[in-house]
Amino acid sequence: MDFGGDDDDTDTDEEEEELETTETMKCVSCKEDYGSRDAGTCRECYEEASETEEELKREIEDLKTKVNFLRFFWGPPLLSPPPFADVVLVASDDHSAASQPVPVPAHRAVLACRSPVFRAMLENKMEESLSGTIKIGDVSYDALRNFVNYLYTAEACLDENMAYDLLVLAEKYQVKHLKTYCEKFLVSNLNWESSIPVYAFAHQHNSKNLLDAALSLIMDNMEKLCKREEYTELVEKDPRMVVQIYEAYLSKQVNTAAKKEPATKP
Amino acid sequence: MDFGGDDDDTDTDEEEEELETTETMKCVSCKEDYGSRDAGTCRECYEEASETEEELKREIEDLKTKVNFLRFFWGPPLLSPPPFADVVLVASDDHSAASQPVPVPAHRAVLACRSPVFRAMLENKMEESLSGTIKIGDVSYDALRNFVNYLYTAEACLDENMAYDLLVLAEKYQVKHLKTYCEKFLVSNLNWESSIPVYAFAHQHNSKNLLDAALSLIMDNMEKLCKREEYTELVEKDPRMVVQIYEAYLSKQVNTAAKKEPATKP
Repeated sequence: MDFGGDDDDTDTDEEEEELETTETMKCVSCKEDYGSRDAGTCRECYEEASETEEELKREIEDLKTKVNFLRFFWGPPLLSPPPFADVVLVASDDHSAASQPVPVPAHRAVLACRSPVFRAMLENKMEESLSGTIKIGDVSYDALRNFVNYLYTAEACLDENMAYDLLVLAEKYQVKHLKTYCEKFLVSNLNWESSIPVYAFAHQHNSKNLLDAALSLIMDNMEKLCKREEYTELVEKDPRMVVQIYEAYLSKQVNTAAKKEPATKP
Repeated sequence: MDFGGDDDDTDTDEEEEELETTETMKCVSCKEDYGSRDAGTCRECYEEASETEEELKREIEDLKTKVNFLRFFWGPPLLSPPPFADVVLVASDDHSAASQPVPVPAHRAVLACRSPVFRAMLENKMEESLSGTIKIGDVSYDALRNFVNYLYTAEACLDENMAYDLLVLAEKYQVKHLKTYCEKFLVSNLNWESSIPVYAFAHQHNSKNLLDAALSLIMDNMEKLCKREEYTELVEKDPRMVVQIYEAYLSKQVNTAAKKEPATKP
């Protein structure tokens, strides 16, 4: 955006200086008076912008109706089993359940459409396709239920733990839309305290957006890095990840230096 | 929108009149100079509006991605049969097909989710549910294929004939989203030539938006109404519909008269 306000002072400086104190215009939006230094738009541009805003709002309404039409809804979400389900998903390692794990019913068509991994699994007469049961390891029943619900509705109620669990599932089953959704949530909740474990998590689960955000935060606090317990643990557990932090830091320093002192000779 | 531009002329008329000709401000959007009569917004309101526009555009992008995620897509649309289809739809009265009608494969779950009529049909062990074949009368194969495609994607490539056919199907199977979509298309294509047949069509298929638009166009051309061939045909075929045109016209005249001469006594 170019706020050309200062360009006015070029030719008739003296005259304008005086006028500015006496002449004001009335803003059609906030109804306050403003002087030339606070000039915004002329009325024509204001009207055009208002029309654009109305158009954008109408487009948003249309898209919301479309989303509502396209998402699956069978009554109270997650309560009633969906009709015509032809497959179940089971959280095979759910230790929170005292007895048998509760199966989550679903439709092959929906799973196959949302995830290329499910599609390959179900189209190719693999064990899951023949038995009609897909076992999902390392996941709680709650996370699995939310994962399946997302495939039907593109909606999930996230807290930090759920976002981590769903990101892992999204990566494993290549559900890009859900992965981005979880990444956005986790990036917005990122802080210095959590940056090292989040960096390690992002590394492990191939989450580039989250990795970049965590790395950037770590690099902004390099002087405090070595004092952190999580740092010592990471050096112990996966020194290569730590090396990558230093490599990124070094590369950033070199780039910054190059920008400050641009080469004058070809 | 209230363009309070004229309010300025209240107190110091003479001084302002002179200033207006000399003093201008520069619009930050089109970069042109403007006088106080063309005043739009102050810079603060301009910046706020720009931020709002950016936010709206981001929301649109998010919603478009969501739509893309939620719609079903199995490869080239309408070409490859969808995997895991468990029901077929047949255009039972398709006289365009020389031989047997081509079945359109689909999923019970999708049909039931998009249309309460299909849901009742498929959940209640009716003939269609038991045989796995849903016969759709009075429709061409092309219209049926487009109808089913819309249930999966919320998209259809409309021309006028297709819009009429899909509106009929949308009304019959209570697919509100598609009905609105067709209505919008047909309203935007409405003209005086087509208004009488469209009025009759909208009446027959319970399309309120289209009916209102056609009726409004007819009422704007009442002096030409009786000369039209379609009018004579409609009087012959369904005089009640014609009566309703006259009733609406009379009601409009009474309302207009009441507005022009408001009662002065209580």
